[in-house]
Amino acid sequence: MYSLRDDYSEGGCPAVMSALSAAAGEQNITYGEDAHCEAAAAKILALCGDPDAEVAFLNGGTQTNLLVISALLRPYESAIAAATGHINVHETGAIEATGHKVCTIPAPEGKLTPELIESVVSAHTDEHMVKPRLVYISDSTELGTVYTKDELAAIRGCCLEHGLYLYLDGARLGAAMTCAENDMELSDIAALTDVFYIGGTKNGALFGEALVMRCPELRRDFRYMVKQRGALTAKGFALGVQFEALFDGGKDSLWFALAAHENEAASRIAAAAAESGYGFTARPQTNQLFVAMPDARAKELSAVFPFHAMGSLPGGRTVARLVTSWAIPVSATDEICAWFSSHPAR
Amino acid sequence: MYSLRDDYSEGGCPAVMSALSAAAGEQNITYGEDAHCEAAAAKILALCGDPDAEVAFLNGGTQTNLLVISALLRPYESAIAAATGHINVHETGAIEATGHKVCTIPAPEGKLTPELIESVVSAHTDEHMVKPRLVYISDSTELGTVYTKDELAAIRGCCLEHGLYLYLDGARLGAAMTCAENDMELSDIAALTDVFYIGGTKNGALFGEALVMRCPELRRDFRYMVKQRGALTAKGFALGVQFEALFDGGKDSLWFALAAHENEAASRIAAAAAESGYGFTARPQTNQLFVAMPDARAKELSAVFPFHAMGSLPGGRTVARLVTSWAIPVSATDEICAWFSSHPAR
Amino acid sequence: MYSLRDDYSEGGCPAVMSALSAAAGEQNITYGEDAHCEAAAAKILALCGDPDAEVAFLNGGTQTNLLVISALLRPYESAIAAATGHINVHETGAIEATGHKVCTIPAPEGKLTPELIESVVSAHTDEHMVKPRLVYISDSTELGTVYTKDELAAIRGCCLEHGLYLYLDGARLGAAMTCAENDMELSDIAALTDVFYIGGTKNGALFGEALVMRCPELRRDFRYMVKQRGALTAKGFALGVQFEALFDGGKDSLWFALAAHENEAASRIAAAAAESGYGFTARPQTNQLFVAMPDARAKELSAVFPFHAMGSLPGGRTVARLVTSWAIPVSATDEICAWFSSHPAR
Amino acid sequence: MYSLRDDYSEGGCPAVMSALSAAAGEQNITYGEDAHCEAAAAKILALCGDPDAEVAFLNGGTQTNLLVISALLRPYESAIAAATGHINVHETGAIEATGHKVCTIPAPEGKLTPELIESVVSAHTDEHMVKPRLVYISDSTELGTVYTKDELAAIRGCCLEHGLYLYLDGARLGAAMTCAENDMELSDIAALTDVFYIGGTKNGALFGEALVMRCPELRRDFRYMVKQRGALTAKGFALGVQFEALFDGGKDSLWFALAAHENEAASRIAAAAAESGYGFTARPQTNQLFVAMPDARAKELSAVFPFHAMGSLPGGRTVARLVTSWAIPVSATDEICAWFSSHPAR
Repeated sequence: MYSLRDDYSEGGCPAVMSALSAAAGEQNITYGEDAHCEAAAAKILALCGDPDAEVAFLNGGTQTNLLVISALLRPYESAIAAATGHINVHETGAIEATGHKVCTIPAPEGKLTPELIESVVSAHTDEHMVKPRLVYISDSTELGTVYTKDELAAIRGCCLEHGLYLYLDGARLGAAMTCAENDMELSDIAALTDVFYIGGTKNGALFGEALVMRCPELRRDFRYMVKQRGALTAKGFALGVQFEALFDGGKDSLWFALAAHENEAASRIAAAAAESGYGFTARPQTNQLFVAMPDARAKELSAVFPFHAMGSLPGGRTVARLVTSWAIPVSATDEICAWFSSHPAR
Repeated sequence: MYSLRDDYSEGGCPAVMSALSAAAGEQNITYGEDAHCEAAAAKILALCGDPDAEVAFLNGGTQTNLLVISALLRPYESAIAAATGHINVHETGAIEATGHKVCTIPAPEGKLTPELIESVVSAHTDEHMVKPRLVYISDSTELGTVYTKDELAAIRGCCLEHGLYLYLDGARLGAAMTCAENDMELSDIAALTDVFYIGGTKNGALFGEALVMRCPELRRDFRYMVKQRGALTAKGFALGVQFEALFDGGKDSLWFALAAHENEAASRIAAAAAESGYGFTARPQTNQLFVAMPDARAKELSAVFPFHAMGSLPGGRTVARLVTSWAIPVSATDEICAWFSSHPAR
Repeated sequence: MYSLRDDYSEGGCPAVMSALSAAAGEQNITYGEDAHCEAAAAKILALCGDPDAEVAFLNGGTQTNLLVISALLRPYESAIAAATGHINVHETGAIEATGHKVCTIPAPEGKLTPELIESVVSAHTDEHMVKPRLVYISDSTELGTVYTKDELAAIRGCCLEHGLYLYLDGARLGAAMTCAENDMELSDIAALTDVFYIGGTKNGALFGEALVMRCPELRRDFRYMVKQRGALTAKGFALGVQFEALFDGGKDSLWFALAAHENEAASRIAAAAAESGYGFTARPQTNQLFVAMPDARAKELSAVFPFHAMGSLPGGRTVARLVTSWAIPVSATDEICAWFSSHPAR
Repeated sequence: MYSLRDDYSEGGCPAVMSALSAAAGEQNITYGEDAHCEAAAAKILALCGDPDAEVAFLNGGTQTNLLVISALLRPYESAIAAATGHINVHETGAIEATGHKVCTIPAPEGKLTPELIESVVSAHTDEHMVKPRLVYISDSTELGTVYTKDELAAIRGCCLEHGLYLYLDGARLGAAMTCAENDMELSDIAALTDVFYIGGTKNGALFGEALVMRCPELRRDFRYMVKQRGALTAKGFALGVQFEALFDGGKDSLWFALAAHENEAASRIAAAAAESGYGFTARPQTNQLFVAMPDARAKELSAVFPFHAMGSLPGGRTVARLVTSWAIPVSATDEICAWFSSHPAR
């Protein structure tokens, strides 16, 4: 039995774990003001092409999302998100708990567009309504899809026109940046957003996300915000150590390689499923596959390769979300592909 | 140069790091619903003598404090704390950020008493004022002092009389429970409080605290609270793994041994300082020492053993906070003692 | 020019203003603990048929909504509302500012049903999502429609089944209870909800709403909540004085008569518009009419009878919201009807 | 029996009530965008000597305080207040409910000084603590004392030096500005603060406060803040009408006359009490007197002139707070003076 439930069922990758062990005996400055964090930030900013930006290392995605959004907005301002956006659906109202409304809109393939953003903006006209002030997107999205550079640039233009911050949730940015259809580098992401984060938890770290902050309003006193939300890690050096390991090598860094590996596995599985007649409810682009399966087939698959069912479709079908991780052995991918080949859709 | 700044400048202790590395390749259920968390909780609850309690593993102290307090209080209710309490001074208003006032009162040695608690309660008489509903204490305190069983029982009685929850912040509970003057076991702490946490970050873990929840109101839907505050760790099994290692052995567990070691070091340093004529602004009981030093002496000490100065005293003196950690080598303790012997107070 | 913009452009009705002036020289107990508030509450509770309920007099609707919802919910719990619900659209995120998400669903005619409520409940399955705990409805709705007794009873049954509080926003309850299709009395509203409010601001008061609280969880310490949100009126007796005047006469009270008057005016206008070929985007039932008008006609109307346009329809049409108030003179109604008769839809 | 409990036991003064009644039949623009609010604001700004400032009319003091403070502060910033400050003691944690800590310091006579402010500022050094950003003072204070122009200017200088906003709570500003020791005009208050409010509720209005906002950061989108907190009054014109009546006459306006009247009454009572041997726990300067009375005498007084006891003093004494209002008849003042003359302190 091999789990396809998510991409964070394993601990850190070997390089990360070794680095953590090696550093465990050192005395480091606490709360992220140590040499490891400094070095890791420098590596990341070099890839981002913006040495003036700042990096904050945080423990997890929901924490990062609520920090960024509550730091940037005044009390009556809101975030715009796709209806499928993580902040809308799967964070137990974390943004609202900081006082802010999330204005949502159904978005095909989980991706916002200038038109969708503008339709939200134009519906908010006066002080009886919240004032949209930030656009939240995720890349890859909650449906495994990715933005192209043109799409992101168009969103950016829309944000600039309407005075909106653009924040990109990169929990699975590695998967986005190493997929076949990717046409961006980290420096593009940095140039086209105000703030984004580079996901570690879902790409080889034991825990941790690297928040890249370009806009000065966010950087001002950001550590106060982090502390206040209980998110300032005492042994912050442990975050620096991990990101040093993940970004030791510029464009050849482990962080890219791990993501490429999981995408490759997913791509093979998607091909096998397609060949056996299965369809997808979202275009397979990265390491999350949404496969439409007859209920009986879904049950069979889950007995050997457990996954999360994401709802039902007409005609007695289940949407199976299959997620590959940096840790998936080639042998497991082989077996999953073989299962699909021997279990046709009909 | 050896740092006495705090007890969280090192990573996890060897047993913790080994356990983390060993588990890194496993696939575990996420968000703390895995076998490691279950096993660690069982070990802890056995020591607490309350199998019906529940344990939640969290990343850090401020996060734990704000979660417990905001989960237990209705919007207009407040927490009572010593003026020196961590939630009052050093958490950047984390409790207030969840909407609740902290009612403070100066407390000798950083310890609350029934009299102090009652003076706060009696000052809050009607709906124009907040309603105190929870007492926050820390053990060992922010001044390194500890509560005796009688003192804790008296506070508990006071809380029951006035309908107040009692919450004990155990960031340094290990130090409290292994100091010379301790007369409690974990089962006493559990029996005399509604909720408390067992600090890991400051006692050998890479990160993590174990919150022991006895009161049912807190347990109800607590995971919703955790998720909403961005505190539900994706790879929660990493917390379970660490606490399994720290509590593998009942009353002989590593968690006790590590704390005993740091207390022993502090005790030797305190004796050396006292012999050389230094006084203390708080009674030396655990691994935090508050030594009154002539400014020049403080400067000399900080050049070889850096520490945090905690303010000034009349007569040109500095309060030096010297903290020993689980990782302090005996040789370092020897050197610090030697320094004090060769640098008399006057 | 006579304004049809809303039903709160005038001050208090003559009886209310006289009562306020008469009481202005008295010395009364402050903060709503006076004899006027007590008498007004007794009159209201007699009509509600529940002497054990409690009444709180508050200044306005948004304030009342945020108080009720934030008093009843734990931090991770949410309110369910129609997408058109006032708390979702027109309160600048007031509910979110207290930390709670509003889970919305498109609702025909602005009215929730058990099916709609259940579709929201069933989509929230675990601690990664908020937990719906309260249903918010308004009667009459933001579209001027009303609930029948059967519809409200069905919603109540659904709420009881799913452990949801039912809260009815009665900003325009007077209009609902005096319209032609009404089949409820105040005692029905009380029996079928946990809490509701009787709107004064939009029905003859200078300011004020009477919140009728049946559920004990809400009543507990509610005054603390009110004070904390800045909503405890110093001269609370001014609210009691007004509601005494409005409810002096049981079922023949002024509050009913004023609403009946405004409904009668709206009903005549609706008939005139319909006769001239105009359609409505929501069924005309109370004092808010949503008339679909060719843009040019809308412009003509607004020059003599200003109103708020509520968006555009295909084919160059405007949705004109026409609102009648307790104060509308019969002569004004006559003139508006005459306008429609002389300005056919096409 | 005549109540000395407070200065808001009566309704509005005759001129206010007449104006409200006269305007009740008009149709006005809602939410404070009407001609009455505009006219009242112009009158107030003329007295303030700052035509570029803006006025917002709000319902009550706690509401005003929480709005101003939460609009000016980022989440981790705090307000500095005297320990006796209304926001610290008597608002049920209203400021904390918006997420902000109130940093308090004991202040002689309830008045802050640059030294006291600086002692708070200097204790907050890094991101582990909140960042003080606003100074809250009240004038007259909760103890009835007043600031001189020099004192206020010194505080202003201190605020400018440390980057702190200065906010003056003028719930009883009328009493301050018409007392014997006053040396300021409204234009001085305006020039020396960033924002302050002119209390109406405690000085002749039925309800209402006029917030004078000079700093642009506060004015930006302030109406959004007001609406979000449930404080945007639907019939906002009722506030404008009242302040038109109170400020119709420049420096000879009713608002000054009413306050002068209540001060005059208090002054006579204070003199009578002093002559009979009573002492005061705060210097009698305005319409609030804090008289130290033997418990028995306090009981006798309360039987004929009810008041609020503000605690006990050694030697069996009660602190009686005696408050005169704009409405106190000269005959009542005569009787109270007579009582003191016939009931000596010992």
